[in-house]
Amino acid sequence: MDKLRVALLGATGMVGQRFVKLLENHEMFELSVLAASPSSAGKKYQDAAHWCIEGEVPEKFREMTVVKADLENVKKEDNVDFVFSALPSDVARIVEAEFAKAGIPVISDASAYRMEEDVPILIPEVNPDHLELVKKQSNRGWRSFIVTNPNCTSNVLILALKPLQENFGIKRVIVSTMQSLSGAGWFGVTSMAILDNILPYIKNEEEKVEREALKIMGEFDGSKIIPAEFKISASCHRVNVLEGHTEAVFVELKSKADPKQVIEAMKNFRGRPQELNLPTAPENPIIVRMEADRPQPRLDRYAGNGMSVVVGRIRSDTVLDNGIKFVLVGHNTIRGAAGNAVLNAELAVREGYL
Amino acid sequence: MDKLRVALLGATGMVGQRFVKLLENHEMFELSVLAASPSSAGKKYQDAAHWCIEGEVPEKFREMTVVKADLENVKKEDNVDFVFSALPSDVARIVEAEFAKAGIPVISDASAYRMEEDVPILIPEVNPDHLELVKKQSNRGWRSFIVTNPNCTSNVLILALKPLQENFGIKRVIVSTMQSLSGAGWFGVTSMAILDNILPYIKNEEEKVEREALKIMGEFDGSKIIPAEFKISASCHRVNVLEGHTEAVFVELKSKADPKQVIEAMKNFRGRPQELNLPTAPENPIIVRMEADRPQPRLDRYAGNGMSVVVGRIRSDTVLDNGIKFVLVGHNTIRGAAGNAVLNAELAVREGYL
Amino acid sequence: MDKLRVALLGATGMVGQRFVKLLENHEMFELSVLAASPSSAGKKYQDAAHWCIEGEVPEKFREMTVVKADLENVKKEDNVDFVFSALPSDVARIVEAEFAKAGIPVISDASAYRMEEDVPILIPEVNPDHLELVKKQSNRGWRSFIVTNPNCTSNVLILALKPLQENFGIKRVIVSTMQSLSGAGWFGVTSMAILDNILPYIKNEEEKVEREALKIMGEFDGSKIIPAEFKISASCHRVNVLEGHTEAVFVELKSKADPKQVIEAMKNFRGRPQELNLPTAPENPIIVRMEADRPQPRLDRYAGNGMSVVVGRIRSDTVLDNGIKFVLVGHNTIRGAAGNAVLNAELAVREGYL
Amino acid sequence: MDKLRVALLGATGMVGQRFVKLLENHEMFELSVLAASPSSAGKKYQDAAHWCIEGEVPEKFREMTVVKADLENVKKEDNVDFVFSALPSDVARIVEAEFAKAGIPVISDASAYRMEEDVPILIPEVNPDHLELVKKQSNRGWRSFIVTNPNCTSNVLILALKPLQENFGIKRVIVSTMQSLSGAGWFGVTSMAILDNILPYIKNEEEKVEREALKIMGEFDGSKIIPAEFKISASCHRVNVLEGHTEAVFVELKSKADPKQVIEAMKNFRGRPQELNLPTAPENPIIVRMEADRPQPRLDRYAGNGMSVVVGRIRSDTVLDNGIKFVLVGHNTIRGAAGNAVLNAELAVREGYL
Repeated sequence: MDKLRVALLGATGMVGQRFVKLLENHEMFELSVLAASPSSAGKKYQDAAHWCIEGEVPEKFREMTVVKADLENVKKEDNVDFVFSALPSDVARIVEAEFAKAGIPVISDASAYRMEEDVPILIPEVNPDHLELVKKQSNRGWRSFIVTNPNCTSNVLILALKPLQENFGIKRVIVSTMQSLSGAGWFGVTSMAILDNILPYIKNEEEKVEREALKIMGEFDGSKIIPAEFKISASCHRVNVLEGHTEAVFVELKSKADPKQVIEAMKNFRGRPQELNLPTAPENPIIVRMEADRPQPRLDRYAGNGMSVVVGRIRSDTVLDNGIKFVLVGHNTIRGAAGNAVLNAELAVREGYL
Repeated sequence: MDKLRVALLGATGMVGQRFVKLLENHEMFELSVLAASPSSAGKKYQDAAHWCIEGEVPEKFREMTVVKADLENVKKEDNVDFVFSALPSDVARIVEAEFAKAGIPVISDASAYRMEEDVPILIPEVNPDHLELVKKQSNRGWRSFIVTNPNCTSNVLILALKPLQENFGIKRVIVSTMQSLSGAGWFGVTSMAILDNILPYIKNEEEKVEREALKIMGEFDGSKIIPAEFKISASCHRVNVLEGHTEAVFVELKSKADPKQVIEAMKNFRGRPQELNLPTAPENPIIVRMEADRPQPRLDRYAGNGMSVVVGRIRSDTVLDNGIKFVLVGHNTIRGAAGNAVLNAELAVREGYL
Repeated sequence: MDKLRVALLGATGMVGQRFVKLLENHEMFELSVLAASPSSAGKKYQDAAHWCIEGEVPEKFREMTVVKADLENVKKEDNVDFVFSALPSDVARIVEAEFAKAGIPVISDASAYRMEEDVPILIPEVNPDHLELVKKQSNRGWRSFIVTNPNCTSNVLILALKPLQENFGIKRVIVSTMQSLSGAGWFGVTSMAILDNILPYIKNEEEKVEREALKIMGEFDGSKIIPAEFKISASCHRVNVLEGHTEAVFVELKSKADPKQVIEAMKNFRGRPQELNLPTAPENPIIVRMEADRPQPRLDRYAGNGMSVVVGRIRSDTVLDNGIKFVLVGHNTIRGAAGNAVLNAELAVREGYL
Repeated sequence: MDKLRVALLGATGMVGQRFVKLLENHEMFELSVLAASPSSAGKKYQDAAHWCIEGEVPEKFREMTVVKADLENVKKEDNVDFVFSALPSDVARIVEAEFAKAGIPVISDASAYRMEEDVPILIPEVNPDHLELVKKQSNRGWRSFIVTNPNCTSNVLILALKPLQENFGIKRVIVSTMQSLSGAGWFGVTSMAILDNILPYIKNEEEKVEREALKIMGEFDGSKIIPAEFKISASCHRVNVLEGHTEAVFVELKSKADPKQVIEAMKNFRGRPQELNLPTAPENPIIVRMEADRPQPRLDRYAGNGMSVVVGRIRSDTVLDNGIKFVLVGHNTIRGAAGNAVLNAELAVREGYL
């Protein structure tokens, strides 16, 4: 199979850099256009991007000239098959629609369209059937479609919740997060604010977590998504960790399950990407650690190349009925952002949407 | 009034150092004996203690010779009116009883006797009436008594819960903690373990939190404590913060209350120490911050000289019935340890027990 | 004595906040005008300043309205006796001259005028006689004058070097710095850049250190400063420390001195501020620690209320002739900035310049 | 070629773990015995070693039983061709001699024998000819020999100095280090000591740096090593960085060289391991970065798989005659310890000593 040609919108930011790294040697996709804000346009990628993730700028992209992230400039550059978007939300609102309208599919990490009725928020292991919802977007007069990613915090949480929903049903979820610095972007948290400290507030984060989970874990009835009916509440905090979100989760199940059953359900959890053997799919979407003191973000964030969620301390909770509590770690800019989008694109190819 | 003379058992550890600092110029107590393990005995205090809290060893204690922390050696040194104990739990089990039996009251920060039926765990603002329980200890054949402190995590949590219990009633509590390094002691967490990391496990901590709250917030019926009846569940984590525990708390109230009412209840909360105007009592046991991003441990841990709990982000929770969620910060080695014990002693004096 | 009335230009930044704190209850100065950039003008101080140093905004300044930092607006507010300036260098260049021209003395922490021939860079313990140089500024047509502070890194270094220069003479100095985050300002270093890391470069810093030392330690011959003749070279690095610069210093002395003699010289060092008993003068400009592992920035930065430099590990160096090496810690935003300026003002008052 | 069989003495510590990782799939060596202290003996490796470097315990060693690190127990296990030693110095003193005497070569990272007259401290790129010195050890009645590693700080420093010595000659070296936590071992630095702090003292470190450089950079005249004649002085500090030592270096050259020439000399530097194309040899022993703000430990420590030293900020120094200053970063437990030892063994094989 010839590789699909793809443009990356928002190529210079931190999530953009993760995309660049994941696409360096991708077997299905050829990253042929790097697009970003006007201030980066015209520069070589290595000069435009302040590279801030591990390793160096991949050699093949160093000298590539960045173009402005709009339809006109991207089209001038190459006839791409689809685009990845890591644009800021307000820009994404306009630019992503422009591409979809023009017949170029958009696989997005931006939050702009997430809560639109006809746009799926996709985690390939969780709700691959929601992909079909994109067909509704033709009603907008668009020749193609937008698929979105969940917020990073939601993403890794929902992965861990999915086998519980499937096996035991979920009634309530309470989650406290300890989120890494990279979630706020390179300049998001100044060092003086976080050294020897915790920031107990992340703007709009709790709302996103509470909102997105119900949509993603809802049911697609062929024409719309019926949100899941459980209740969810979050308290979100920033800690002095470079990458990897940690979350303490309390769940009220519909039917009783002891920790052993929960462990089994999580260990055995596989999704459509594993069935299809997609290139970016981790062998295990959830890795369960049995040690008393795992997961830890520095040790576990790169499990499954950053695509697995690591869960530990699975134990009973006596406050909630059929209560279970556990701790999870997931890589917020890989599984929680660029990696999930790449997996979305792989799924879309194999399901005939790209 | 002449100052009461007091010995400090476990004077060299980190909590011991907090006691030393709090007692340097205390208006009611004269710290006249510094006692510690055999390996420290015979040394000058400044050589025996690896001083690790802010500032320097107070001058008046620098040259004081440390004695072995047992009844015989302390008595040889001075005829003290009572003792503070910051001993390790296993040593405390034996030594504290020795003092109580010999007629010397023990105000302890150790966990050894906390859960004994006839021993109160005291937070002066929360359950000052439990102090009377010590009279039951004469049944052990003891001529005096032991009063204990809660675990540091429980202490600051319970202070914040008390006005909720009083005003609205409590049915369920779920708490996720982000605990500071000092809670583990000077050598408790090696630097390589915690840099760019979180440890999602603190041995026995969740059990302590879940157990102690019900006893402390229970009712003393004149002869025994009837535990409070709400349910409580904790997930405890260590973060890279020097001092000050942060806790994300979700509470189900018995009667509905909106955030404003909760804020008022917390702001107006005063206890017996404030009535009695005890020297170590903070003006406000709870300080409510209205900024979106407070409390923060580095900025708020020394509020009220480390004796106030700072609460912020008070908001409704939709998962629990009559749900309220908030974040708190409290100083774990002051309010959560030495400071609470000193306040216990002050209360005991004014109530006629010392 | 009536207090002198003073305006603070650049009141909202981190050094500005240090000024505010130092002037809260100052016995000689009444801070009556808070001035800052146009974007802050018109706001209450507590809203304009993102308070980022320990404690809270002092109560008396919370509601004070910030005015624009120029002559016109400050004069409208109050008839101040002099101004402190913590302005950015480019703004300082224009605004400070405006005040000096109009007859209002400027005690500045900005770098704008430091290297001008007729402007002293003053450390009151080191070169108080240089203050007289300000008289030359009348040649500019100014009715008053500007006095400047050294760069923070230079300041604490020069304090430690002064007794060596006085007692043994200095031929060469090599210094490697480990500088704190606050030196770069609140937004100067993003957290992702410095966690688990060191930044081996601080723009223009080495040049400043190398240049300012020779001027400050030079001789004032009544009409101009003849720079000191030793050689100095710096390597400047940023480390993950909140406040307090640490410097490893190697010195070639003119005449041989063993470590004991150096220790004595440093311990006995006193300057004009100590003679005059100025309110902000520390008892000891230099505190020598004899422990093997001191000074440490977290433990020693607040020595002498942040106005003392703490020196340790004084030992022979065999590479340089008559070589001595040592490590120092100094508080970069107190002694290295606001505190030194306040001390400059106190000196200027007592020497009849204010 | 059949692989040589090798035992690892001190397999459970942090340097031991680095050896295990480097030897997991080594083309020349088969790690067949894991040996450690009596308290570890008899346990499975994964239980005995508290794994603390990135990744997991390599699968092939997880279940391997650890034996006591002495000749008798190692021999019982396998007939090894040589041993690697990461033993503590006092144990190494006795055990390494035991092996050498019995005819089993020892490639050691321990400091015990470094300064013995007949024992080379080897950096394969720097002094491969010193290997011949081991022949002298037969005078001890040993049937085989010990080869040692430099101290980690010396190692990466000397690599950077070697091309300067070769091309321009060296007269004096002054170095200030900012050393990582791993250099002190897993339990070496407690978190409360180093958070928001620097420790300005590392026991014996400065002495080691000053002593070892002259021996390693000395000349082997066929029977003994004539130490290099330059002068060297160090100031050693611990910073809150996980891995990777950073060093600020000032060098007085014998003959004048501008930064460009120094850059060229470093870039072009190759040694015997590169000639021989040894498996663990990095392509470039020294990588020169031209960016103003490199090298940085978090970004550069894994350059050349942790075997290259990264040098930056090469500039003139005006204090020393023909002065050059620069900053370097090197991985202290790979190039500075296990990796150098493995490279030593590879060299010894190819030169006919193993």
